[in-house]
Amino acid sequence: MNSDSVAMTDLSGKMYKPETVCIFGTGDFGRSLGLRLLQSGYSVVYGSRDPKNSLLLPKGSKVMTHAVAACDAHVVFVAVQREHYGFLSSLASDLEGKVLVDVSNNLKRGLYPESNAEYLSRLVPRAMVVKAFNTISAWALQSGGLDANRQVLLCGDHADAKQQVVDIAQSLGFTALDRGSLRAAAELEDLPLQLFPLWRLPLNIAICLTAFIFFYVLTRDVIYERVTNGKDNAFRIMISLANKVFPIVSLVMLSLCYLPGTLAGFLQLYNGTKYRRFPDWLDRWMLCRKQLGLLALAFGFLHVLYTLVIPIRYYVRYRTNAYVISLVKDNKTYEFDNTMSWRCDSYYSMGILGFGLFVLLGITSLPSVSNSLNWREFRFVQSKLGYITLLLCTAHTFLYGWNKFLRPASYRWWMPPAYMLSLVVPCVVLILKLILITPCIDRSVTRIRQGWERQGKTSANGRDTKTNYPLIA
Amino acid sequence: MNSDSVAMTDLSGKMYKPETVCIFGTGDFGRSLGLRLLQSGYSVVYGSRDPKNSLLLPKGSKVMTHAVAACDAHVVFVAVQREHYGFLSSLASDLEGKVLVDVSNNLKRGLYPESNAEYLSRLVPRAMVVKAFNTISAWALQSGGLDANRQVLLCGDHADAKQQVVDIAQSLGFTALDRGSLRAAAELEDLPLQLFPLWRLPLNIAICLTAFIFFYVLTRDVIYERVTNGKDNAFRIMISLANKVFPIVSLVMLSLCYLPGTLAGFLQLYNGTKYRRFPDWLDRWMLCRKQLGLLALAFGFLHVLYTLVIPIRYYVRYRTNAYVISLVKDNKTYEFDNTMSWRCDSYYSMGILGFGLFVLLGITSLPSVSNSLNWREFRFVQSKLGYITLLLCTAHTFLYGWNKFLRPASYRWWMPPAYMLSLVVPCVVLILKLILITPCIDRSVTRIRQGWERQGKTSANGRDTKTNYPLIA
Amino acid sequence: MNSDSVAMTDLSGKMYKPETVCIFGTGDFGRSLGLRLLQSGYSVVYGSRDPKNSLLLPKGSKVMTHAVAACDAHVVFVAVQREHYGFLSSLASDLEGKVLVDVSNNLKRGLYPESNAEYLSRLVPRAMVVKAFNTISAWALQSGGLDANRQVLLCGDHADAKQQVVDIAQSLGFTALDRGSLRAAAELEDLPLQLFPLWRLPLNIAICLTAFIFFYVLTRDVIYERVTNGKDNAFRIMISLANKVFPIVSLVMLSLCYLPGTLAGFLQLYNGTKYRRFPDWLDRWMLCRKQLGLLALAFGFLHVLYTLVIPIRYYVRYRTNAYVISLVKDNKTYEFDNTMSWRCDSYYSMGILGFGLFVLLGITSLPSVSNSLNWREFRFVQSKLGYITLLLCTAHTFLYGWNKFLRPASYRWWMPPAYMLSLVVPCVVLILKLILITPCIDRSVTRIRQGWERQGKTSANGRDTKTNYPLIA
Repeated sequence: MNSDSVAMTDLSGKMYKPETVCIFGTGDFGRSLGLRLLQSGYSVVYGSRDPKNSLLLPKGSKVMTHAVAACDAHVVFVAVQREHYGFLSSLASDLEGKVLVDVSNNLKRGLYPESNAEYLSRLVPRAMVVKAFNTISAWALQSGGLDANRQVLLCGDHADAKQQVVDIAQSLGFTALDRGSLRAAAELEDLPLQLFPLWRLPLNIAICLTAFIFFYVLTRDVIYERVTNGKDNAFRIMISLANKVFPIVSLVMLSLCYLPGTLAGFLQLYNGTKYRRFPDWLDRWMLCRKQLGLLALAFGFLHVLYTLVIPIRYYVRYRTNAYVISLVKDNKTYEFDNTMSWRCDSYYSMGILGFGLFVLLGITSLPSVSNSLNWREFRFVQSKLGYITLLLCTAHTFLYGWNKFLRPASYRWWMPPAYMLSLVVPCVVLILKLILITPCIDRSVTRIRQGWERQGKTSANGRDTKTNYPLIA
Repeated sequence: MNSDSVAMTDLSGKMYKPETVCIFGTGDFGRSLGLRLLQSGYSVVYGSRDPKNSLLLPKGSKVMTHAVAACDAHVVFVAVQREHYGFLSSLASDLEGKVLVDVSNNLKRGLYPESNAEYLSRLVPRAMVVKAFNTISAWALQSGGLDANRQVLLCGDHADAKQQVVDIAQSLGFTALDRGSLRAAAELEDLPLQLFPLWRLPLNIAICLTAFIFFYVLTRDVIYERVTNGKDNAFRIMISLANKVFPIVSLVMLSLCYLPGTLAGFLQLYNGTKYRRFPDWLDRWMLCRKQLGLLALAFGFLHVLYTLVIPIRYYVRYRTNAYVISLVKDNKTYEFDNTMSWRCDSYYSMGILGFGLFVLLGITSLPSVSNSLNWREFRFVQSKLGYITLLLCTAHTFLYGWNKFLRPASYRWWMPPAYMLSLVVPCVVLILKLILITPCIDRSVTRIRQGWERQGKTSANGRDTKTNYPLIA
Repeated sequence: MNSDSVAMTDLSGKMYKPETVCIFGTGDFGRSLGLRLLQSGYSVVYGSRDPKNSLLLPKGSKVMTHAVAACDAHVVFVAVQREHYGFLSSLASDLEGKVLVDVSNNLKRGLYPESNAEYLSRLVPRAMVVKAFNTISAWALQSGGLDANRQVLLCGDHADAKQQVVDIAQSLGFTALDRGSLRAAAELEDLPLQLFPLWRLPLNIAICLTAFIFFYVLTRDVIYERVTNGKDNAFRIMISLANKVFPIVSLVMLSLCYLPGTLAGFLQLYNGTKYRRFPDWLDRWMLCRKQLGLLALAFGFLHVLYTLVIPIRYYVRYRTNAYVISLVKDNKTYEFDNTMSWRCDSYYSMGILGFGLFVLLGITSLPSVSNSLNWREFRFVQSKLGYITLLLCTAHTFLYGWNKFLRPASYRWWMPPAYMLSLVVPCVVLILKLILITPCIDRSVTRIRQGWERQGKTSANGRDTKTNYPLIA
């Protein structure tokens, strides 16, 4: 490499790495950002109303008044709350042509009609405002990005200003994701205020289902007993009833997680193309399948614990012992029932294998695991193994019920046992799936998913093996 | 910063971020890619045979005929299936000097003699073809890379063309990994078609082992009983037998996961150097240790569930109650056996602690956890704690067997109890490891692993504390 | 794009991607690095003392003497152990102006007064030394960064030299994090030698607590029984005692994990500002809360297994059966106790729900999961759900104890039952938290955490909703 290219490299080195970065605001975020910038070789100047109040600022940084601080730097981070932005309009001339990085967040959504970054842009119209770093916490900056989210989202109207912020973010060890023009700022400012938006719907479904099944079982098992036989077995609420509610909710939610996929299959079959949007409700349903499945797993996990705890319950030990004592007193013998033995053991075995597969599905939903799978592997686990899980859990429930549905005593107040209710949705899903995988229909669906359209308007639209809805198909 | 450097920045900003990107093909992938590019500030033009059929294209994009669309852009994504590549040769002059990004995948492996990207390069020889993005799903593009694999693998013969694709990938929030020349395209195109290649061997071992142990146990426990005593206890298959098969397979596979490491140690000791390749079978074995270990954990997990379910089994409750009733009838008393109590409790305790450590090993194998460990920490967990796990599980099995091996009744049809078989491999591994960690041998192995060679041909080959086979050593 | 800009792109392509990279040293790391560089399109030249000894070097690389090898490349990786750096001083003139990348690690900490990189810089003063890649293992290089830590930490005194190393790292698919000047090299060289530094304190606390509770329980349950009644129930150590020790340690550690947060709240309330540093001990305590919590979860997990194994213990089966037999013999009946049933079932139910939530907390502590949460979500899970977990587990313990504390027989040798000890810290934490969330105090704390200060010296310090200590607040 000759001296010329070395000179150019030097030049570019200087060009892309501004020597000095200015930070307005000496709060937590400003301090953490400054420390990180210093560690990465930048020199840092703080702009403060009261430059002498610099107790906790990182070593090696300087503090000046806002105007003086901004003077040396080309990039200025505005780490000040929106309410205090006012003073910036008086600095408009000092900030002309500079890159102003708005890192602010609000305490609540919808406090202001326009985003903080757009407001800033209006206050200092001749600066190039970039919204960035607001999704990064002071903690993530301090901990060196090793144990925290490393993606800096940014937006702004000036490509070169954004590039400079991207360069800084990358020097600090973050990856940057450009979200477009400054109009996207409102969206970025909403991100840190979200509270599990994708979990809302599945959680509401889970809560409603739990409440419904609980009152159903309460009526059948406790209130019926009280009214009919005058017996108080309310203590059963804590474990026996819980252990009926949890598995039922788990099974129903697991099948709800696979129902939209089969519905979508039939819809594509009916439409004869995959290039027509699904109705909105199906869209939303498909997008929360992962959450539905994970909630089902959580309920399943509780069911397992509630089941395993049975033999150490006082009530169970009492009942067993009382039964043995009564047998002895009546001088009866205990007949061994081979069918009962088969049924009971199969029932547990199905449940255990189903739960084992279910845990596997849960593990592959962990971001780091699903990221290490390719599309085909992910589909294999979430779709093939998923249906086997559903099948095992449904079989587990059928074996649990066995011939109860034949006994009239099972229908108290005309209410069938709760487990029967839980079998409706899974059976529907399994039957629909069974239809979809019959060879002739499967062939049509596969052709449609590969881009084929019924009216012969096949188009050269590549890569169609990847459908729109990848999670658990 | 003076106006000059600002001008240069602007220039470079324009230079590195092409204003317009063209996408051929309006399928799922093309649409998702276009949406993401638009979000990141690019302008997007679709090339389509039928520009009017643009129902589902993202807002803000334009659709034109292929030739017109390519005209404005320097980078053209070819999101079309390989079968439809033909039309591209007629556009050869329009695509001259452009960067053509081949994002295609095939439905099966080995459909074509040459990779899609090389075929494209042959069709449009004067374009610079880059293979990229084929490992990214439409879903990953849509979900903003937040919950999906963020690494774009690419290859191509033109360094600057690749750099432009890298820049685009980084703007979209992905990291890029250059895999070399276009000859690597075939390999990249195979990646999305793989189905757990590293799991094949361990899964086959697990299936064979399970089948063998199952039939062994079936013969000893069910068939023997039927033939000798005429008793039908086939119901034992569902839980009792499963609960013999699973722990045995788990223990054997856990020890198979540590065996190659000790073998490699002895081989290095025998060779007197670490700079000689291991035989191929050992190589392949060492590369699937993680998978062997995780399968062993899965079997161990099932064993735990099958064990905990024991007391609520019908058969067990029947047997216990029948035993108590018979004791009462015969007016016998139940003698407390202190040794039995010690043995039984130690047996469970070892098992629980072993399983606890095993789960810890499993958690540290999760990509995101193992990535946050340094080399020394990873080795500590996978090697030190791994051997302790193996030791505890082996002790658990020995305590389970206790003095059964002394009783002639244990050898039905000259077949020893299955648990004895399961102890062979773990004992071999533990004894080999014990030899390796005796001070004098340990010193030699450590010296060899640090680069020392027996014939005195020590070379200045740095960083040798990191061996070739890091996972579970 | 006109031909001019294409020319510039070409130029920049050449400028940023050095054609040839030189590696001194042909050990594991040198070989793996060379292979990876070749895959990414670089050409690789090895410098070796003995260029003919090139058996295992990757295909496509060349081997030469050090001086010749360095000649072609602008970037030279020094993959040689520090002890062999001596020969480099003789190459000083060949290496003038080159970028020397020191990738070395030491076998132990504190072996040398200065870092390897600074030593190298002193040996070859006219080269630009960059410390980098030492935290990346040969394995991570081989496996393509797919399953290994992808962050390259680097430091050095020359911005453009660092930029070239950053470019190479990014081409290889790594992200780069600049840690400042060459003085940081000592710190980087210590990183791979660390062994769970953040886990030290929590592990020591766990070990001390376990030992203390074990001896306390041993005295009360085994030694007391031996001395007073002459009964040997030492077999209880294996499970009964373990199952007292584990839950106690788990509960105490869980509460220790939430105690510093409440203490910090009171301290901020007392100081009237959040801009005063916490005392050092509180600082260190807060930084290891995650580890405290995860250890508590591990102990809780063991407690669950030890509990579920109870009914299959020999001793328990013996006791139950003996009890039934004695009841039959004495012709007594077994009275059902409704309160007992409620208490016992509630006790298990609380425990199961508490453990379920605890597992959820554990899962959200996995790096990949916590990275996908925003700040508000993370706080919601770790703080809100965390306190509910603590509440449930404390209630579980209270229900376990029930009215034991009233019975004089519980105080053997004036020692109260161990579970009482375990309730002290959780109760303190819950009471303190209860005080902090009373509306009036909550308002003050929130104001302080948003940057308000008592003496009216409010400053425009932005983004203060993100406190200094984010993990489990």
